[in-house]
Amino acid sequence: MVTGGDPTNFSRDRTYLVSPVVNADRTVTFRFAAPKADEVQLHGLSPSARGTFIDPPKPMSRNADGVWEIAVGPVAPDIYRYNFVVDGAAVNDHNNPTVSQSERTLGNFVEVPGEGPAIYDVTEVPHGDVTMRWYRSESLNTTRRMFVYTPPGYHSNANTQYPVLYLLHGTGGSESNWINEGRANFILDNLIAAGAAVPMLVVMPYGRAYPKIGRESGSIGFRENIELFERDLFDNVIPRIESDYRVLTDSDHRAIAGLSGGGGQSLAIGLGNLDKFGSVAGFSAAIRESEFDDVYGAGLDQSPTPRLLWIGCGDLDHLYDVNRSLLNWLEKRDVAHIAHLNGGGHDFQNWRPYLHEVAQRLFKTTAS
Amino acid sequence: MVTGGDPTNFSRDRTYLVSPVVNADRTVTFRFAAPKADEVQLHGLSPSARGTFIDPPKPMSRNADGVWEIAVGPVAPDIYRYNFVVDGAAVNDHNNPTVSQSERTLGNFVEVPGEGPAIYDVTEVPHGDVTMRWYRSESLNTTRRMFVYTPPGYHSNANTQYPVLYLLHGTGGSESNWINEGRANFILDNLIAAGAAVPMLVVMPYGRAYPKIGRESGSIGFRENIELFERDLFDNVIPRIESDYRVLTDSDHRAIAGLSGGGGQSLAIGLGNLDKFGSVAGFSAAIRESEFDDVYGAGLDQSPTPRLLWIGCGDLDHLYDVNRSLLNWLEKRDVAHIAHLNGGGHDFQNWRPYLHEVAQRLFKTTAS
Repeated sequence: MVTGGDPTNFSRDRTYLVSPVVNADRTVTFRFAAPKADEVQLHGLSPSARGTFIDPPKPMSRNADGVWEIAVGPVAPDIYRYNFVVDGAAVNDHNNPTVSQSERTLGNFVEVPGEGPAIYDVTEVPHGDVTMRWYRSESLNTTRRMFVYTPPGYHSNANTQYPVLYLLHGTGGSESNWINEGRANFILDNLIAAGAAVPMLVVMPYGRAYPKIGRESGSIGFRENIELFERDLFDNVIPRIESDYRVLTDSDHRAIAGLSGGGGQSLAIGLGNLDKFGSVAGFSAAIRESEFDDVYGAGLDQSPTPRLLWIGCGDLDHLYDVNRSLLNWLEKRDVAHIAHLNGGGHDFQNWRPYLHEVAQRLFKTTAS
Repeated sequence: MVTGGDPTNFSRDRTYLVSPVVNADRTVTFRFAAPKADEVQLHGLSPSARGTFIDPPKPMSRNADGVWEIAVGPVAPDIYRYNFVVDGAAVNDHNNPTVSQSERTLGNFVEVPGEGPAIYDVTEVPHGDVTMRWYRSESLNTTRRMFVYTPPGYHSNANTQYPVLYLLHGTGGSESNWINEGRANFILDNLIAAGAAVPMLVVMPYGRAYPKIGRESGSIGFRENIELFERDLFDNVIPRIESDYRVLTDSDHRAIAGLSGGGGQSLAIGLGNLDKFGSVAGFSAAIRESEFDDVYGAGLDQSPTPRLLWIGCGDLDHLYDVNRSLLNWLEKRDVAHIAHLNGGGHDFQNWRPYLHEVAQRLFKTTAS
């Protein structure tokens, strides 16, 4: 809550409600001012909260000032998404400007630091840039935005050509998610500084043909969306990147990965076009068994096994079973792949480490 | 409100509350689900709402489903900031992911289109890029971010050197404000395409030494903040830009402008260093009369009048009087300047047109 006033009067005493507060013992205090509410809860955004400290939602307590509070934890070091539910109404933490912006919703996040630096922390290493580029998508008859990470040294090493990872967000998400919440740039900065990943570009388009849940929704089907986005990717995104940046353009140096709905897109577009993508990864991929033979099988029939096929999913994820089915299908077809099954749910607590893992495996050896 | 479910099931009927809705007659409908609330209001963020359709705040009405609604307008075409107040608690519109991120608060915005394209619209012209760069500020012993707009053609015109506008946000704001809410990039794209502005870089640093209202506040004074930020600007930001980009480095081709607290910084740093900045502009500048002689006067004593000194303020702005005082002071000293006094308040409804106006006056003639 803001009291006052004159914006030049910087010394004036103002009262701001501070939320969240990460305490020294890694407990986290959340606060929300709602003097007249009957009930306030701390929520995660389902299904993202599964297995975290906000699963299930937690009731908050009202103090004498009408501020609702809860302290949770100690909480494992990570970045978590949360919101509040006030008398049944979902709201954001108005005092916390760190948010993940999806098509139609906002989720706050809170970062709990650990003893040492996390894989996604801003450390004192050289930092790459992240550029927002607006481009004309003739395929979709619109102007849209992509985010492009260029690694440290890109601007000074004028004779170097770089490989490219195309990295997709999930259904209902946006092209900013992998930066704002996924910290893809800092994960890469840290890996590159440690010599653990090859310097690469990471291109993050708006990975849907049309918004799924946006204002102008026009709900389109699973397959139709993949096919329409595939046109935008091949006809607009990739040509633009390959004309404007110093990048390698063979399949050995082009990868595609994505989370959830973007994981389904990556598997369909990647395995369906192995002449273009040498490496393919799905993070908690939203897939359908009908795609296995029709799309993945058809693609694998025409091309050799990709250099890297990586499938990751957490055992609390609602998509765990269908990802297990995909792994069984790959095993039956004897397709070389890496299965990364672990704990946890459908959230960036898994996807950040998945990117950290996959980035280290990309573009390292030359195919025969 | 989201119902359900399987993220691969894109055809499933989901119910989302849509808010806001801009109707064909330019009325705007806001909705917020709060079945148990006693009172919900549509608010602007004071003092930004002055003179808009949310000045004063408007009560919303509860419908049978527990959704609170209000239709306002017709509203003049523009981009407005708003939030809700639910039983005394300030909250965001959870169903609207377009937000302005300040140090400690979030404000939603709603865009009301007019008949023709607005100065800030995404039109079918070439678009410049906006790059987020993380840099080490030795002056402030931290790593921080700036946004850099490069005009269309920057990457292909390898022999062209460009002038630079340093553009500052307001107190409590952030380095993203001029892009996310100010649309500085689209304003420049449109002007450059029309031949009305010279292609230029626009550099948007985090324009404070330390957060004013952030978690680690350490509230510092008006002058101390200017002096500390000035060190970061001269020792870190400008050298980094001038080493990494093809830019002109004489004062004729370097300008500084800012809004509110950033306007006060621009006037103090610009007029205090006219050997470095040939053009200076304050938009609703947060200034103090004590600075006039001590800082501006001292700077003007040492250097010739700037090529451009531009002062803009709206008559509903709480900083109108002090900006009038500055104009009187400039007149008394016979300092050439442009006074742009108009209607409206302390908000981007004024600051976008101010940038549009100033950008057309920058870098056009060579000083004698």
